[in-house]
Amino acid sequence: MFKKILIANRGEIALRVIRTCKEMGIKTVAVYSTADAESLHVKFADEAVCIGPALSSESYLKMSNIIAAAEITNADAIHPGYGFLSENAKFSKICEEHGIKFIGASPEMIDKMGDKANAKATMKAAGVPCVPGSDGVINSYEECEKVAKETGFPVMLKASAGGGGKGMRAVWKKEDLKAAWDSARQESKAAFGNDDMYMEKLIEEPRHIEIQIVGDATGKACHLSERDCSVQRRHQKLTEETPSPFMTDELREEMGAAAVRAAEYIKYEGAGTIEFLVDKHRNFYFMEMNTRIQVEHPITEQVIDFDLIREQILVAAGVPISGKNYLPNLHSIECRINAEDPYNGFRPSPGKITVLHAPGGHGVRLDTHVYAGYTIPPNYDSMIAKLITTAQTREEAISKMKRALDEFVIEGIKTTIPFHRQLMDNPDYVAGNYTTKFMEDFVMEKPVEEE
Amino acid sequence: MFKKILIANRGEIALRVIRTCKEMGIKTVAVYSTADAESLHVKFADEAVCIGPALSSESYLKMSNIIAAAEITNADAIHPGYGFLSENAKFSKICEEHGIKFIGASPEMIDKMGDKANAKATMKAAGVPCVPGSDGVINSYEECEKVAKETGFPVMLKASAGGGGKGMRAVWKKEDLKAAWDSARQESKAAFGNDDMYMEKLIEEPRHIEIQIVGDATGKACHLSERDCSVQRRHQKLTEETPSPFMTDELREEMGAAAVRAAEYIKYEGAGTIEFLVDKHRNFYFMEMNTRIQVEHPITEQVIDFDLIREQILVAAGVPISGKNYLPNLHSIECRINAEDPYNGFRPSPGKITVLHAPGGHGVRLDTHVYAGYTIPPNYDSMIAKLITTAQTREEAISKMKRALDEFVIEGIKTTIPFHRQLMDNPDYVAGNYTTKFMEDFVMEKPVEEE
Repeated sequence: MFKKILIANRGEIALRVIRTCKEMGIKTVAVYSTADAESLHVKFADEAVCIGPALSSESYLKMSNIIAAAEITNADAIHPGYGFLSENAKFSKICEEHGIKFIGASPEMIDKMGDKANAKATMKAAGVPCVPGSDGVINSYEECEKVAKETGFPVMLKASAGGGGKGMRAVWKKEDLKAAWDSARQESKAAFGNDDMYMEKLIEEPRHIEIQIVGDATGKACHLSERDCSVQRRHQKLTEETPSPFMTDELREEMGAAAVRAAEYIKYEGAGTIEFLVDKHRNFYFMEMNTRIQVEHPITEQVIDFDLIREQILVAAGVPISGKNYLPNLHSIECRINAEDPYNGFRPSPGKITVLHAPGGHGVRLDTHVYAGYTIPPNYDSMIAKLITTAQTREEAISKMKRALDEFVIEGIKTTIPFHRQLMDNPDYVAGNYTTKFMEDFVMEKPVEEE
Repeated sequence: MFKKILIANRGEIALRVIRTCKEMGIKTVAVYSTADAESLHVKFADEAVCIGPALSSESYLKMSNIIAAAEITNADAIHPGYGFLSENAKFSKICEEHGIKFIGASPEMIDKMGDKANAKATMKAAGVPCVPGSDGVINSYEECEKVAKETGFPVMLKASAGGGGKGMRAVWKKEDLKAAWDSARQESKAAFGNDDMYMEKLIEEPRHIEIQIVGDATGKACHLSERDCSVQRRHQKLTEETPSPFMTDELREEMGAAAVRAAEYIKYEGAGTIEFLVDKHRNFYFMEMNTRIQVEHPITEQVIDFDLIREQILVAAGVPISGKNYLPNLHSIECRINAEDPYNGFRPSPGKITVLHAPGGHGVRLDTHVYAGYTIPPNYDSMIAKLITTAQTREEAISKMKRALDEFVIEGIKTTIPFHRQLMDNPDYVAGNYTTKFMEDFVMEKPVEEE
């Protein structure tokens, strides 16, 4: 087993990894930018190394500094968390070259699954249902027109290197295709330095439902059921739940089997997620694979009583998995609490937290790196906490979330707590009747003053 | 279902009950003494009524004030929590007379089980193993001598009205019997106004293992497995766990069956606990029954994913139980965090909490009514928080507790966090090798400064 793990990340996920390492008796090294010197992950790690200024490209993305920190502290493994270098093939390779175990996918795997067109071709070969569309990258506008005709409108144009909605266009009729093609390519070039595009059938009433998988070095994989992440705003997930209210036992079995088939086909090692789009007829299509731990992993942990970070570490150390699939026994919901003002277009609201009171009690889990007196730097992701409730039924998990949100006091900054309060009362959400389009129609109501 | 429940208690248990009521959509009324005006249970309830000054006998024990508060606010039920009026037959009866449902045992049941000699006779009749000893109250010293001879030394003399170790004496040989008899009666008279005594065989290497039961109005009962509460200091529980490290599947089945037999024999309605002493040969003996929710109930909730307060409310409203027994799927430990100085004989340490940082993450539950800025009044129980960790194995639950204790920051007062840190490293505790005598030999070590 590893003796010391460096966590190449910040915020709640750095703390999350440190917690499991402590529980496993593994020493930890935190790295931090100058903006994060007061962060909890710095305080709770056994050692901490400053790796640069606030700017991510000079700190959390600066591979040489992170490798140097690992070498100075004699760390024998690096956990990359999510975001930053977690799906960076070059970083995975550099770790390998330095004899440091990267707790994540191999460089080859990241290359294979990180490029979306490549990933789709691989999944097709594994017999996993994919959205109809182009066979990889479209080489010209002429080809684009041809593929659109074969696929049938509506279609989606997507940047191969894309993410977070950048370089993505929905096209409902042929006349709009050229303009979409040009602007999406331009946007992709600007964002990723690459304007490769591919095309997919636009899915009706799509739900984003992903399957958590774990694979080991023997080539065996298992699935840990689904997470429904359909409630998204501009392709950013806001809340997730498991089981999906749209799921049936049959569909779970089919999607789970497809995900395991995919993982075993590519001999996937570690924790990963196969994201699917599910249409209104319960057809499911491979969307992308995330070769890392995800923000929303706790809801899976809650319903199967399983520590996924621990599992990542064990698999990276060569421990084989049991191979058993896990089905949810309970219902769990995560609300991402962001330092944003939901009454003002979710505008970021960094600053100093003056008062913090955490909710607690039965069925409540809070993963956060912030505390009273902490100043949220404006440089990074605005997520400051993940509030997770778990209960026997979905109805009870929602009730529990409402009371936990009511207890949660954060003063000094604006947060998305009021958004989640309203979401938990929204009749469509309560009915489980939502797709990835849900937030397009969602309007925040000003709070009603109490009598 | 009840529309509004008054919680006749304070501190974490008042908050605990309010949380479940909120989740069930039931309105809540908090009652509070002037010393508790700033308490969270007051802030989180829908309504709050001040029922008197700090002195318990003038507030939390003042039945007329509590009933008046219930009538003013139109509460249709009262939840008494633990302690205070939770096992007071007179209060249960007054509630009944005022048409307010008492969420607890009937006056008759409290009378029957509250008197220890009575309770033992009842349990004997139900076929539950009891500790050999006197048949109820001993009427004279002559009878005392006779019973001691029949029972065989060592024996325990106990006050019928006793609790918290008052009026209790261990006697190892005949020569010491008279002095023990006199002093125990004197102590009992002073503490309880009653000097009735009974005698029991002294149990070798005793473990305090209790079985949680729930019964309903149809006379059906089920058990929810055990809690090991052997780690006690002066008869005050410090930490509890489930499963008991001393438990076997066979013993659980036997003890569970005995507890269900007991509950069904007396037609017990609601949540209750049958406390047993288990000797080194795994013989078990009925000790007493608690006709209320207990401090340590969360560990049971954690391993069976079950809300016991909700169950109490449902049963009180006439909903029948499923009748199924629950076996632990996981391992859970509770540490009671008290405002006491473990380095100075656990001396109470009331005062203002200046900084509070709550632990969190996977498998961590915190039930507390305190917050940064809160002043702990000197008038009540010193328990300020219950920290509960849950994992797949006992070893993991201990590791999790250690890291959660490390994260838990409370400044401004002394707490028992350092005691629990040391306990979790104690080789006997870690080996599960402890009895109710454990704390007699436990010595706090001064903390080692970190390198």
